[in-house]
Amino acid sequence: MRKIACVITSRASYARIKTALQAINKHSDLELQLIAAASVLLEKYGNAVNVIERDGLNVLERVYMIVEGENPVTMAKSVGLGIIEITTALDNLKPDLVITIADRFETIATAIASSYLNIPLVHVQGGEITGSIDERVRHSITKLSDYHFVSNKTALERVVRMGEYIERVFITGCPSIDLAHKIMEEPDGFDPFQKYGGVGTILDIHKPYIILLQHPVTTEYAMAKEQMWRTLMAVYNTGIQCMVFWPNLDAGSDGTSKAIRTFREKFRDNTMHFFKNMPPEDFLRVVLSSACIVGNSSVAIRECSFMGVPAVTIGSRQHGRERGRNVIDVDCDTGQIADAINRQVSNGRYPGENIYGEGNAGKKIADLLATIPLTQKTRLAY
Amino acid sequence: MRKIACVITSRASYARIKTALQAINKHSDLELQLIAAASVLLEKYGNAVNVIERDGLNVLERVYMIVEGENPVTMAKSVGLGIIEITTALDNLKPDLVITIADRFETIATAIASSYLNIPLVHVQGGEITGSIDERVRHSITKLSDYHFVSNKTALERVVRMGEYIERVFITGCPSIDLAHKIMEEPDGFDPFQKYGGVGTILDIHKPYIILLQHPVTTEYAMAKEQMWRTLMAVYNTGIQCMVFWPNLDAGSDGTSKAIRTFREKFRDNTMHFFKNMPPEDFLRVVLSSACIVGNSSVAIRECSFMGVPAVTIGSRQHGRERGRNVIDVDCDTGQIADAINRQVSNGRYPGENIYGEGNAGKKIADLLATIPLTQKTRLAY
Amino acid sequence: MRKIACVITSRASYARIKTALQAINKHSDLELQLIAAASVLLEKYGNAVNVIERDGLNVLERVYMIVEGENPVTMAKSVGLGIIEITTALDNLKPDLVITIADRFETIATAIASSYLNIPLVHVQGGEITGSIDERVRHSITKLSDYHFVSNKTALERVVRMGEYIERVFITGCPSIDLAHKIMEEPDGFDPFQKYGGVGTILDIHKPYIILLQHPVTTEYAMAKEQMWRTLMAVYNTGIQCMVFWPNLDAGSDGTSKAIRTFREKFRDNTMHFFKNMPPEDFLRVVLSSACIVGNSSVAIRECSFMGVPAVTIGSRQHGRERGRNVIDVDCDTGQIADAINRQVSNGRYPGENIYGEGNAGKKIADLLATIPLTQKTRLAY
Amino acid sequence: MRKIACVITSRASYARIKTALQAINKHSDLELQLIAAASVLLEKYGNAVNVIERDGLNVLERVYMIVEGENPVTMAKSVGLGIIEITTALDNLKPDLVITIADRFETIATAIASSYLNIPLVHVQGGEITGSIDERVRHSITKLSDYHFVSNKTALERVVRMGEYIERVFITGCPSIDLAHKIMEEPDGFDPFQKYGGVGTILDIHKPYIILLQHPVTTEYAMAKEQMWRTLMAVYNTGIQCMVFWPNLDAGSDGTSKAIRTFREKFRDNTMHFFKNMPPEDFLRVVLSSACIVGNSSVAIRECSFMGVPAVTIGSRQHGRERGRNVIDVDCDTGQIADAINRQVSNGRYPGENIYGEGNAGKKIADLLATIPLTQKTRLAY
Repeated sequence: MRKIACVITSRASYARIKTALQAINKHSDLELQLIAAASVLLEKYGNAVNVIERDGLNVLERVYMIVEGENPVTMAKSVGLGIIEITTALDNLKPDLVITIADRFETIATAIASSYLNIPLVHVQGGEITGSIDERVRHSITKLSDYHFVSNKTALERVVRMGEYIERVFITGCPSIDLAHKIMEEPDGFDPFQKYGGVGTILDIHKPYIILLQHPVTTEYAMAKEQMWRTLMAVYNTGIQCMVFWPNLDAGSDGTSKAIRTFREKFRDNTMHFFKNMPPEDFLRVVLSSACIVGNSSVAIRECSFMGVPAVTIGSRQHGRERGRNVIDVDCDTGQIADAINRQVSNGRYPGENIYGEGNAGKKIADLLATIPLTQKTRLAY
Repeated sequence: MRKIACVITSRASYARIKTALQAINKHSDLELQLIAAASVLLEKYGNAVNVIERDGLNVLERVYMIVEGENPVTMAKSVGLGIIEITTALDNLKPDLVITIADRFETIATAIASSYLNIPLVHVQGGEITGSIDERVRHSITKLSDYHFVSNKTALERVVRMGEYIERVFITGCPSIDLAHKIMEEPDGFDPFQKYGGVGTILDIHKPYIILLQHPVTTEYAMAKEQMWRTLMAVYNTGIQCMVFWPNLDAGSDGTSKAIRTFREKFRDNTMHFFKNMPPEDFLRVVLSSACIVGNSSVAIRECSFMGVPAVTIGSRQHGRERGRNVIDVDCDTGQIADAINRQVSNGRYPGENIYGEGNAGKKIADLLATIPLTQKTRLAY
Repeated sequence: MRKIACVITSRASYARIKTALQAINKHSDLELQLIAAASVLLEKYGNAVNVIERDGLNVLERVYMIVEGENPVTMAKSVGLGIIEITTALDNLKPDLVITIADRFETIATAIASSYLNIPLVHVQGGEITGSIDERVRHSITKLSDYHFVSNKTALERVVRMGEYIERVFITGCPSIDLAHKIMEEPDGFDPFQKYGGVGTILDIHKPYIILLQHPVTTEYAMAKEQMWRTLMAVYNTGIQCMVFWPNLDAGSDGTSKAIRTFREKFRDNTMHFFKNMPPEDFLRVVLSSACIVGNSSVAIRECSFMGVPAVTIGSRQHGRERGRNVIDVDCDTGQIADAINRQVSNGRYPGENIYGEGNAGKKIADLLATIPLTQKTRLAY
Repeated sequence: MRKIACVITSRASYARIKTALQAINKHSDLELQLIAAASVLLEKYGNAVNVIERDGLNVLERVYMIVEGENPVTMAKSVGLGIIEITTALDNLKPDLVITIADRFETIATAIASSYLNIPLVHVQGGEITGSIDERVRHSITKLSDYHFVSNKTALERVVRMGEYIERVFITGCPSIDLAHKIMEEPDGFDPFQKYGGVGTILDIHKPYIILLQHPVTTEYAMAKEQMWRTLMAVYNTGIQCMVFWPNLDAGSDGTSKAIRTFREKFRDNTMHFFKNMPPEDFLRVVLSSACIVGNSSVAIRECSFMGVPAVTIGSRQHGRERGRNVIDVDCDTGQIADAINRQVSNGRYPGENIYGEGNAGKKIADLLATIPLTQKTRLAY
């Protein structure tokens, strides 16, 4: 019985790993050891730990690691505190393998803790290109990892080129696509207002609506408020009704949140509704039914290319990520954003693409975790 | 006036950067901001901060970051505490560039702190191959760094292959070779016993003597005591007089130290002398005059290939590092070690090689720091 | 020139020490070393550091120490992180004396840091009685302190009875009363809506209005939301217009904030206005002109007894504090609260009392800091 | 079944609580939750955790919390790290009561963690007088504690006078006396050299020998080496054989250890033997058979007053502690120390006294823990 520890640090990374966790949980040779950390535990970010537990997953350790301040200093210190705390959790659980996801600052804390504890580390979503601080952190985690479960052949090639052993890199696709796959086969009929409440006008979901989800960009965190404001104005100018979601924890998210709050006070009678958080499936459900997704979320690039949902992607945050035909890229300019939204809404749904997986990543990952050798790589492959 | 921060975390990394620090200190366009951290501040490891200050370098911040325990858990937690503390130091000093050296666990703390503070990071000694935990940490730091000052063309090629921009990688040689170069041009006449005291028999330095410096291997730290014991027995069996140096701070150094203490108590009248620490130049002086250096220090590979001093390198710690003709590699076996020592002592001095530099790295580094653009890389080069 | 370090950890503690800081700053024998820490640096709590700097005080160090979570675990961890960080700040500044204020969790971090650094510690506001976790922390700080500057004779007697030396205890009064004193001598004419904006209805300040400021109670933090809700409903039921202020950082403040937000969404057209934060003087100005202050702030007990402003004090948070005739105590019950508000508003202003000082505490404190011996106490007085 | 957590942070505090732990372990209504922390886990201080486990006690959590440096800065930071780590341990174990012992810096970390977690706290050994930093920390812990188990009536009176409720203070005696009591009823015949090895000359235990155990004094830590040197010279001058024990972890213990090492190298053929550590009983056995105990250990004051062993107590570390007739106090002066040793050795054993208990504290403590109400005090008793 292999013990597989996974540290979940945000609702976004939960969405990206959920089907793998469920497959591990069901697998007869695997025991899942779930650690809930960082924003997953914070009410302000929707307390995603409750969603995880409602999904039937057992949280064994809770790690508070965010130093308040939402600026570069506290972001760095949060990594430090995270290493101290995650080391304790891993030392208590003594897993055979540790999984870490993607590239956020909480993720490198997990990678360093398990490296120094000599526990083989599996990195999910390595080898992708995005720009910003996340980019270097992602590749840095690649170099600390013993196994790589990547989304596609391009990512595999990059990881191998960076000096990883090809026999330690596997194309599994991204588990987030599994959810999209499942959602698409369901019948309709989900009412987000009834289920999640939220704040603002109740939208008519039988008419076209926009999804807005915009995170602060780490290297531009001082401009987060201004950037969110421009996007809100653009959406407002189109006159199309909109669901606005709160951003992830990051340097600058205070600014983004402030823009939302000020906008809401100022334009009381607009056509917007504000949601704090939703479990991944329900979020994908409202995205799937939407006319367009606006902002800089990776969902627009990943899940939406599979589902064919039109996307307007703003600014530098998703630069470099492989994208499908469903995406229009624009600068953070109110006019450009509004124009692109109008074009996407009139275009309608795109045909789906398999850039980030085929919808069976969770099972593939669990099967690999049950069979890969429990060894650590020793040196660069070249 | 560019402010250049450098975090020194061990006497070994001080030796590897000293001539660069002196060149920065003298450079009219640069201001050196020195941070003394980790074992540099600890009496048990020879309080190298005193050596630094006696060398005329001004220490601006002192960072205590080692959590006692010398095991994997405390090593990981020390990285965490180091990030918290180094972030404070860097935030106080607000440097234009940060230098980090090589690959130890304190080094990645510096790399993470300056990454999240968005300060361009210069990595010295990237692109080398060694095996062990240090290997993955070194390459992980490469991915977090904006500039790379490497020892030779092989290292440059590896760094570029890992996805760094060739215009951000410079062959400077290793500053440790500068010291070796300087020492070799000096007249003789240094008496380590008078200058440093130490413990044990006073050796006759006009007869052949061995230098023994052996560090615990991180991934085998439980065997540190046994491994040191075998080496001590091998040296003892050759009958050749020997200077023994205490190891670096690392998981397992408690074991190595214990072996030294027990050996010293048990074989009181042997031909060994024990030194706690010496500044880099004086250490190189005694190495240069020695008949052979034994253990697993990188000095045997790097400086000794330049100086032509015969070396017996034990076990896995230096696996993979490029080496010259001066090195014989052996397993950690008393018989093998003793045989190799005898062969090296009868062979005598080798011709010097330039594998790790030509002796002018310090000046090259300072000149680069004064001129490279103060920008950060944004994404993988491919 | 004596260096006097003071760690400010919340807008409330800034208000309580401000006139002393100004007197220190002006004193020819004293140099003020101000450290801004904890919620003082957080936008969410009004970024009081900006207020401090606008008041002409120079902030030398910024200490991020709040671990997000707002529950007992993160509160304890915040004390731990605070000790680590404040120790660095004090070690950099090397003050001759350290001042710590009152009893919050950030305060004990300062007390422990300066105790272990052997810097004489001055405690302001010891010897008072309140109940709750703050109570034991306050007395614990008394035992760590070398000097005690207390509000009145009762507090002095308690401090001495706990085993402190009478020659180390001084009745200075509370500096917060100095502000009240100054405000009372000013002409009227301050418009908070114009100066601070805030959210909600603009009140008619020429008609009677209520001030509502309610903090979560640490030992009852799970009930914070419910408690705030009851108070909001009580105020709403009186029909009197009201200024609502956001709470301090504490376990439970998330709950309190949530009650405010939900209430605001639900009762949009009510007679309330919501302010995030005000500098102490401006806060006292609106309190002085108000018909009644409602909640559990110590301002209602301290400054308002001096100013004679009617107060309705709810629940256990201020239990035990000496109070004047201006206070009516009630349980956290909507009916009781509303009744008491109505009684106080019809009663009108009370005559002022000197329970917490005469209005010259700042100057007294600065003069003492310039003259007390720089020694530490050695043992219990009995 | 009440869960009783106890944090053991040094071999000294283990000795002081051991019989209580054993009684808790055996008690049918209690479940012991043992946390091993700080120097208990460090090889350098004798790895007392092994002794604890060999005694049949189960260690549930291991807390590394010592920041290396052994100076005031790292001592303060160790308290901070300790709070962070002990909070995690207590949050995992969720005890009904927490026990903390005496007054060292690790002890206040436990007190603060359990205070903020709202777990009732029992303090053992409060109300005593000693001087030094420990004194204020001890009384500070008293103010954070809910229950007090004290050694004698004088201690009870002090605790009550400090404002604690008399119904929450119990005279249990000190558990360390229980061990002394047990040892005194045993037959002789224990050979410490065979059992513990150690370093140096084997003494003739049938002739008079001295025990030397001297800790650095926190407020004088720069003088630790000099102070230990004077004592070693004094013992050497008497010509009486001596067992030397290594000191506790504390600011300055590096200095004390250095004095021992230098002395040992310099006076190789003396009549001294050096022990790293012994479990409490074995330590008491060699003390009981000794002619005199020299240094500044509390054992000389506490256990030795009960056993009647002559003691020479040096310097300020034990100032103020109630002492029996068995103690001669001297300054840290080689001549005074040597004279006092000679007087004590010729005097021989004193009659025993019950100042610190009657030998049944462990059982009393366990019975109290099973029956006291699980409530927290709310405010000062006056």
